[in-house]
Amino acid sequence: MSEYGTHDKDGISVGIVAKKTFTFAEPPRQMSLDSGKKLGPITLVYETYGELNKDRNNVVMVFHALSGNSHAAGYYTEKDDKPGWWDNMVGPRKGIDTDKYFVVCSNIIGSCYGSTGPSSINPATGRAYGLDFPLITIADMVRAQKALIDHLGINKLLCLVGGSIGGMQAIEWAVSYPKMVESVIPIASTCKRSALAIGLSEAQRQAIMADPSWKDGGYYGTAIPEKGLALARMIGHISYLSEDSMHRKFGRRLHENNAFKYDFSGDFQVESYLQYQGKKFVERFDANSYLYITKASDYFDLGEQRGRGSLVEAFSRCSAKFLVLSFSSDWLYPTAQSKEMVRAMKKAGIDVSFCEIDTDFGHDSFLLAHNQLTRLISGFLNRMSHMSEGNGPA
Amino acid sequence: MSEYGTHDKDGISVGIVAKKTFTFAEPPRQMSLDSGKKLGPITLVYETYGELNKDRNNVVMVFHALSGNSHAAGYYTEKDDKPGWWDNMVGPRKGIDTDKYFVVCSNIIGSCYGSTGPSSINPATGRAYGLDFPLITIADMVRAQKALIDHLGINKLLCLVGGSIGGMQAIEWAVSYPKMVESVIPIASTCKRSALAIGLSEAQRQAIMADPSWKDGGYYGTAIPEKGLALARMIGHISYLSEDSMHRKFGRRLHENNAFKYDFSGDFQVESYLQYQGKKFVERFDANSYLYITKASDYFDLGEQRGRGSLVEAFSRCSAKFLVLSFSSDWLYPTAQSKEMVRAMKKAGIDVSFCEIDTDFGHDSFLLAHNQLTRLISGFLNRMSHMSEGNGPA
Repeated sequence: MSEYGTHDKDGISVGIVAKKTFTFAEPPRQMSLDSGKKLGPITLVYETYGELNKDRNNVVMVFHALSGNSHAAGYYTEKDDKPGWWDNMVGPRKGIDTDKYFVVCSNIIGSCYGSTGPSSINPATGRAYGLDFPLITIADMVRAQKALIDHLGINKLLCLVGGSIGGMQAIEWAVSYPKMVESVIPIASTCKRSALAIGLSEAQRQAIMADPSWKDGGYYGTAIPEKGLALARMIGHISYLSEDSMHRKFGRRLHENNAFKYDFSGDFQVESYLQYQGKKFVERFDANSYLYITKASDYFDLGEQRGRGSLVEAFSRCSAKFLVLSFSSDWLYPTAQSKEMVRAMKKAGIDVSFCEIDTDFGHDSFLLAHNQLTRLISGFLNRMSHMSEGNGPA
Repeated sequence: MSEYGTHDKDGISVGIVAKKTFTFAEPPRQMSLDSGKKLGPITLVYETYGELNKDRNNVVMVFHALSGNSHAAGYYTEKDDKPGWWDNMVGPRKGIDTDKYFVVCSNIIGSCYGSTGPSSINPATGRAYGLDFPLITIADMVRAQKALIDHLGINKLLCLVGGSIGGMQAIEWAVSYPKMVESVIPIASTCKRSALAIGLSEAQRQAIMADPSWKDGGYYGTAIPEKGLALARMIGHISYLSEDSMHRKFGRRLHENNAFKYDFSGDFQVESYLQYQGKKFVERFDANSYLYITKASDYFDLGEQRGRGSLVEAFSRCSAKFLVLSFSSDWLYPTAQSKEMVRAMKKAGIDVSFCEIDTDFGHDSFLLAHNQLTRLISGFLNRMSHMSEGNGPA
C-alpha cells in the first residue's frame, strides 16, 4: 500500500475499501422499535476490513460515535485526502490488526451516512422522513446491527469495540445477545448519561430547533438549518475537549495583529476554531440526524432498561469479558461513570479489566492516536483471540 | 421589618430601598474607553444600604455578575415577592452587616438595568444604541464606578466584594485605584478566563447572533431574539452548575408519567428546567447586553493589561489586603485559577488569605446562602474594619 505512504505514518493501511449495503425489514416485516413504532425497510451501510476466517470466530465489530460513519479505515479512492475515522487503530499490524481480525463497522440507523435515518426517503410518502422518522434508541441501533451480522452468517463476535455512544452500542449488544458476544471494550462510555450531559445535548438540540430554517425538520430540498447545526457542533465540540487541552491548543491567543478588534466577530483563536468546526460540520452532517442520535444517547440507561433498575442485574445477563477504558480529562463521561460500570460488572461476576488513561485530550481522546490505548486494545484482543481458539470454533 | 418576615428567614432586611441614579460624562466631556472610543453621557443606577459614617471609612462596594443589577438587597415595595439578589448576605447582622457598613452596589455600564448600555437611547440618534454602543471592558466598568464613588464624596473603600465578573471588577479596582482600596474579596473569580470559558461564552454569543430576530443588534421596538437569548442562558446556566448539583437536583428523572415521550419536546426534568431558565431570562435581560458583558469578561486579563504580561507586576501596584474564595465544584473559574491569583499576590508581597469552599453547587455557589461563605466574609470585614479604625480616618 505504498501509495498511501504519505497518509499513513506506519506505511500500512487496509487500502482501498468500499461501502456495502444490506437492506431488510421490508414491509410488512418491519422492525419493531422501543418506542412501539415500526421501521422498514431499513438499509445499513457497512464496511469490512480483513478476512473472515474459516471458523468465523475472528470478528471484531467497531461502533462509531455520534457523527461517525461506517468508514472506520482505509480510503475509498486513491485521491482521498483522509482515511476512515479510526485508521490509526484499524489496519494491518495496528491496534485492531486486520491481518488477524475481520472488522465490521456499520453506520447506525438514524445517521445520515447511508443507513436509514430522517434524511432517507420515506417509502410511504416518497419524500424524506424528517420528523416522521420514529425516535430510536441505542437498542434499536443494535437490533438493526444484529440483522446485518445474521445476514453475514456470523454467530460469534470475538470483540465489540466502541467509544462514546459506540461504547453504549457495544454494551447493549453484550446484554441483548449474550451468547454471541465474547468480549467488549467500551471506551469513554457510560451506562447512562448524567444530567449535565443531557443538559448539554438538549442545548445542542435547541440550537438546531431554534433555527427557522429547521422548519420542524422539514428543510430537505430547501435551505438547511446551518447556523443551528453549527452552533450545536460548537457546544458539542467544547464538551469533547478538556480545559487543559483547550488551554494548550489555544490559551488566550488572539488571531489578528495580537490586538483586540472590539467587535463581535471573534478575537480569540479558540472562537474562530469553534466557528470553523461548526461550519465544517454543516457540510457533512444532517441536523435531524443530530437530534435523533443525541436523543438516543440520552435515553440509554442500561440498568433501568435491562436490569429493572439494577446495573448488576443487567450485567448478570452477559457472559462476555470486558475491558473498560476511560480518559482522565473526559468531563462528558467521566472516569467515575466507567468505575460505576466496572463495579456493577464485578458484582455480576464478570471478568473485567479497567484502565483510566491519563490524557489531557478529553472525551475525544479515543479518536486520537495514543500508544497506551493501542497497546491495551491489541493486548486484550490477543488474549481474547487465544482464549477463543482454546475453546475451539463455535 | 416584620412585614418581610415571610421573605427573610432571619427576619431582618434592609427593608424598602430605592434606585438612585448618577449621570456624568456629558458631551463633550465623554469618558474614554479602552477601545479608544468615547462614551457619554453615562448614567449609573445604584443602590446603597446602611449609613455612611462620619469618617466615611465604612464603605463596602458590592459588584454584581453578568446578569445582576444594582438591587443587591431589600425590596422596592412591600408587595415584592423577592428581595435583591444578595439579600442573604447584605443586611443588618448579615455577612455584610448594614448596621456597620455603608454598602454601595452599582449596575455596570453595558447592562440593561438602568445604567447606560446598548438598549439605552443614543443621544446622537434618538434611538437605542444597539451595536453602535462601543465595546467595553471590565476596566471601563470600573472607571465609571470611580466617577460615582467620587460623586458620593468617598475616597476610601473599606472592602470590595464580588463574585464571578463582580470579582474581576473588584480586582481591577484594587489595581487601578490602589490608594483608595483597603481590601478585596474576589469570589469564584479569575484574573483571566480560560480558553474553555471563552469558548462557552462565544457559543452563547453565537446563539444570540444566529437568531434572525437579532438583526445585527437592531431589534429594539421589534421582536426580540428570544430563542437565541434563551439558548444562550441555557448554555450559561449549565456552566454555572456542577455535575454533582445537577445530578442531585435532577438526575435522570422524567417529568411526565415516568415514561419516554419519544419526541423532541423534552423527556427529562433537567431539559424542562433549562428551557424554563432560558424563557424566564428573556423576560428580564437584553440580548445585546449579554453580548457586551460576556465580551468584557473574555477581554479581562489582568497580567496582560496591567502588568505587561506579569500578574505579579500587576498586583505589585496594590496595597489592598485580599481574601480570595473559590468553590470546589466551580468548573467555569476553577480553584486552580484562584490559586494562580493567590500565588501572584504572595509574590507581589500582598497580605492574602485564600479558602476553597467545599460545595457541590458550582460557580453559582456565591449567590446561595452558605454559612461558611457568610462567616468568612463577615470575619474578614471585621478584621479590615478594626484595622481601618486603628489607622484612624483617612
